[in-house]
Amino acid sequence: MRIALGVEYDGTDFLGWQRLTHGATVQGALEAALARVAAHPVEVTCAGRTDAGVHGRCQVVHFDTEARRDARGWVLGACSNLPASVAVLWAREVDAAFHARFSARSRRYRYTLLNRPVRAALEARYVTWERLPLDAEAMHAAAQALLGEHDFSAFRAASCQATHARRCVLGLEVRREGEHVIVEVEANAFLHHMVRNIVGSLLLVGRGERPVAWPGELLAGRDREVAGPTAPATGLTFLGPRYEAHWGLPDEVNL
Amino acid sequence: MRIALGVEYDGTDFLGWQRLTHGATVQGALEAALARVAAHPVEVTCAGRTDAGVHGRCQVVHFDTEARRDARGWVLGACSNLPASVAVLWAREVDAAFHARFSARSRRYRYTLLNRPVRAALEARYVTWERLPLDAEAMHAAAQALLGEHDFSAFRAASCQATHARRCVLGLEVRREGEHVIVEVEANAFLHHMVRNIVGSLLLVGRGERPVAWPGELLAGRDREVAGPTAPATGLTFLGPRYEAHWGLPDEVNL
Repeated sequence: MRIALGVEYDGTDFLGWQRLTHGATVQGALEAALARVAAHPVEVTCAGRTDAGVHGRCQVVHFDTEARRDARGWVLGACSNLPASVAVLWAREVDAAFHARFSARSRRYRYTLLNRPVRAALEARYVTWERLPLDAEAMHAAAQALLGEHDFSAFRAASCQATHARRCVLGLEVRREGEHVIVEVEANAFLHHMVRNIVGSLLLVGRGERPVAWPGELLAGRDREVAGPTAPATGLTFLGPRYEAHWGLPDEVNL
Repeated sequence: MRIALGVEYDGTDFLGWQRLTHGATVQGALEAALARVAAHPVEVTCAGRTDAGVHGRCQVVHFDTEARRDARGWVLGACSNLPASVAVLWAREVDAAFHARFSARSRRYRYTLLNRPVRAALEARYVTWERLPLDAEAMHAAAQALLGEHDFSAFRAASCQATHARRCVLGLEVRREGEHVIVEVEANAFLHHMVRNIVGSLLLVGRGERPVAWPGELLAGRDREVAGPTAPATGLTFLGPRYEAHWGLPDEVNL
């Protein structure tokens, strides 16, 4: 049978999502914990791989197993075998046609900037510090040019292995909450470093170093070389994917 | 001259506020950093000492120095000599009559409970996990019996060195924010473990194990032995003290 899980993780001490032989990864920790619960090797497939230092609020994975455990058994069993920085939030038996990656209709990310003269001490793992005052309204206005389906080559890492750069951005909001400036973006899918590259360019607008029209011009130019730098991984959280309701998953990952 | 500082810290890796010879403390780290900026030994006095693992959002300290540095010099100089888990938020030259502890009219604390079936992975340093569903409204109603000036012996640690147990609780609010239940309390001053002991008793009300009237009865009985257990340090943040506006400190620490 096929099981879907919701997974929360603090990415600070991991080399990223994807299993590696030379260091700790979230996938590696999760598969090791599930193998102990299932009593056989487990391979998981995730909705969206994350880079080193990036956090997950509700990553979704699926795996196949012959082991008979109820939802509570998978959740508690996995949690008790995982390091403190990873937790399984829920488990659901799903149709064999469900695929954590291919069934996902969209993915959501949040990027949190701490915008004050002094670096973070509290919550330093979850924010990127920006010392210069940011104009969040200008950043939001600039971001609206990226909505819809476009070729996002201007915001694509050189290492990106996707077959093409067309993605559809469904929502992109920048707002201030006290000392924080928060960027939330939803798209059908993302290119490698796409969120961090968008934030890196929006930061230049927020600091007044580029006009509001600039990110839209970058998008049209499709040239990564002239866009802003990649914003740091700290501050980025994968909020999770969204699926059609007929799969029967919890509300937080439904469309 | 006398300088006041606002200090933010993550208490996870410290043995608490107060300087010790056998391990890392926030006071020790701060005094070492300030001594480098002042070029002479510095002793700081804080508004409220915190225990091991307790965080500070805006602790206030004062110290005396003959070194001439502007506010920016103290802030940047201290931050560059502090570990990543401590930051100086602001500095102000203050009247010699200002005293971080004795001038404070009140102190504010926040206690954050993560209330869901699964332990925390993200933000685990800043919450205390409570698995059983909590009735935050019952906790809030129960807490209102503690408002005003009372003898708080029922919520006082055996180790408390205060000369008497009378304190005035100015505000005590319990509210739910999604998966979190947040307790915020303001008092003229606190006994040792007073917030954690109050939260420990409110938790029993929230789980339905004690009636709403129970914390008020505990208060009247003045017997620590029959009150709830001390809630863990994780989850507790000292938001900071409040002073009269005439001292000229930033808004966040003014009455």
